[in-house]
Amino acid sequence: MNSLNQHSSKIVCFARAEQNIAQILTDTRFAKISFRPHFKTHRSIAVAELFRKAGVGKITVASLAMAEYFAANGWNDILIAIPANPALATEYDELAGKIDLSLLVDSPDSLSLLLHTLKNPIHFCIKADAGYGRAGIKTEKFASFFALIQTIANSKKHSFGGIVSHFGNTYHASSEQEIVDINNNSLAKLKTLKSFLEAETGNACFLSIGDTPSLPHYTTEMLAGVDELRAGNFVYYDMMQVALGTCRIENIAMAFRTGILSVYPDRSEALVHAGAVHLSKEKCNMPDGKEGFGAVVRLLPDGSFGEVVENCFVDRISQEHGILRCNQEFFNEFHPGDTIGVLPVHSCLVM
Amino acid sequence: MNSLNQHSSKIVCFARAEQNIAQILTDTRFAKISFRPHFKTHRSIAVAELFRKAGVGKITVASLAMAEYFAANGWNDILIAIPANPALATEYDELAGKIDLSLLVDSPDSLSLLLHTLKNPIHFCIKADAGYGRAGIKTEKFASFFALIQTIANSKKHSFGGIVSHFGNTYHASSEQEIVDINNNSLAKLKTLKSFLEAETGNACFLSIGDTPSLPHYTTEMLAGVDELRAGNFVYYDMMQVALGTCRIENIAMAFRTGILSVYPDRSEALVHAGAVHLSKEKCNMPDGKEGFGAVVRLLPDGSFGEVVENCFVDRISQEHGILRCNQEFFNEFHPGDTIGVLPVHSCLVM
Repeated sequence: MNSLNQHSSKIVCFARAEQNIAQILTDTRFAKISFRPHFKTHRSIAVAELFRKAGVGKITVASLAMAEYFAANGWNDILIAIPANPALATEYDELAGKIDLSLLVDSPDSLSLLLHTLKNPIHFCIKADAGYGRAGIKTEKFASFFALIQTIANSKKHSFGGIVSHFGNTYHASSEQEIVDINNNSLAKLKTLKSFLEAETGNACFLSIGDTPSLPHYTTEMLAGVDELRAGNFVYYDMMQVALGTCRIENIAMAFRTGILSVYPDRSEALVHAGAVHLSKEKCNMPDGKEGFGAVVRLLPDGSFGEVVENCFVDRISQEHGILRCNQEFFNEFHPGDTIGVLPVHSCLVM
Repeated sequence: MNSLNQHSSKIVCFARAEQNIAQILTDTRFAKISFRPHFKTHRSIAVAELFRKAGVGKITVASLAMAEYFAANGWNDILIAIPANPALATEYDELAGKIDLSLLVDSPDSLSLLLHTLKNPIHFCIKADAGYGRAGIKTEKFASFFALIQTIANSKKHSFGGIVSHFGNTYHASSEQEIVDINNNSLAKLKTLKSFLEAETGNACFLSIGDTPSLPHYTTEMLAGVDELRAGNFVYYDMMQVALGTCRIENIAMAFRTGILSVYPDRSEALVHAGAVHLSKEKCNMPDGKEGFGAVVRLLPDGSFGEVVENCFVDRISQEHGILRCNQEFFNEFHPGDTIGVLPVHSCLVM
């Protein structure tokens, strides 16, 4: 399969990734908060090393398999940020024998099943639903949180790792104000919950949040009481983040390399070998105001990528095919057999 | 990564796949037509063997890498059904030294670049656009087709493999009548082109078509003049094909195995570890009339899957999470830690 890998693959611009990381980690708004970046976007040891160089020692992942992968590569403080599956208790236990493992729970049933098997100490975090409506216990249900914390404490072996929440609804926001509103509402609920639990238990209650679209909108005041940020998409960014106003197109540090297969000047379009299997079917607004599946960049002789090709976007895709909408200058510069880069809509979903 | 593979993976029901293949290959409407099934949906040697047992000797794939993969596993007549990339000419040439390789072209520039490098004989097929508007030369441009055929003939070494068209617009049809109309329009254009080219060249002109949604709508009359069908999705089928009326839900031969992570009876929902990275973000109408990302099936003790769980569908997804909408009976039968199967919207895009 070498021929495929040579001609179509993910390209990371490490200089931009390093800059994106430094920009967030040195931001004075986050001076009192620790980072546990979510590595779902960059399942790459090389990118993980950029974080380590920048002083990050703890990470978030999306699955047990990812936790095992990074544990095997020297990361020893990992949160698996999806409610723990009781069927995997043996595997969690094995991993917890090697590293500091934090697991998420959101129900007494799952917690009981897990406690039944787990022998090595676990940091149990409780997933709180502050309005997103996906996973977690609703923040209003104080007693449910308290009961779980008691069960964890009674186990003697394990510890309560704090409240973990994710404002995934910011990804569907249609304006920057909406992102701010989601944060203000969700943070107010979480801080009320935190105060209640601290009063009841007499211990500090750790609070972890962190989606990437919210990053530019946080203020020091909003973040008072927040202990940890888990945002991770800021390493690469993507066209969705450009559309949401989180970054500029020049910050995007990852592209998908693909070949131009055919050109159709009569309809101002070109065919590339980049479809849903490569880019996913997610679309968003492109800088020309129309929806699309990615912007196009020129590749550099060193294998990295550089300038955006003006007014050129992935207009539609099927499984393996992508159609570019472009202007007539495109056909002077690019021909079948040439290679370009596509800046994706959602960097997490690029293969 | 073993723990992930144990608990979440693609499950194929081989008995159903075999039945689906037999049903199409023995259909009397296709008695005079040969099949070159598209293997994009089933990148699996085991499923390929079901086709071989059923008498199929030639296949279609979506990329050079797939062609190399199946060539290495004993398939020696392969069409790569995406316009050939001139940058890969050396790799195509190497493969053509081992098997009967058919490539698609849709422009004189690409063809010239390819001819410059290719030493081993290739069957060049010309991609015709009969209305889909993705790749190919518009069927009305008789002279463009004729010129390419002449260039191929002048090469001496290579041969003209026929006209290849794909009515991908059937996947976006909103009714069965629309699928029939697309076929009637597209087939009329292709047959006119075929007649013209046969009269001009004095040779038979091979015509290859074949998307899966059209299969149930073909009549013997419609197919007069068609030499080859490339449909491939009929091995597994999927919820999109159910929505399009191509098959029944009981015909679906592939599911994604996943774990129930949490249950939320108060909102009639449950959380599974099946998100966009597993199922893709494609949705379609579910049997309950609402949109969704998949239906749910019970797993069998032998590792295969069986009955559909009534009124239970993947309502929404994020990257790793899927939320099921279900009724209250669900919570009597299923609990966190249990494993279920999800019948996907588009089997091609399941990881």
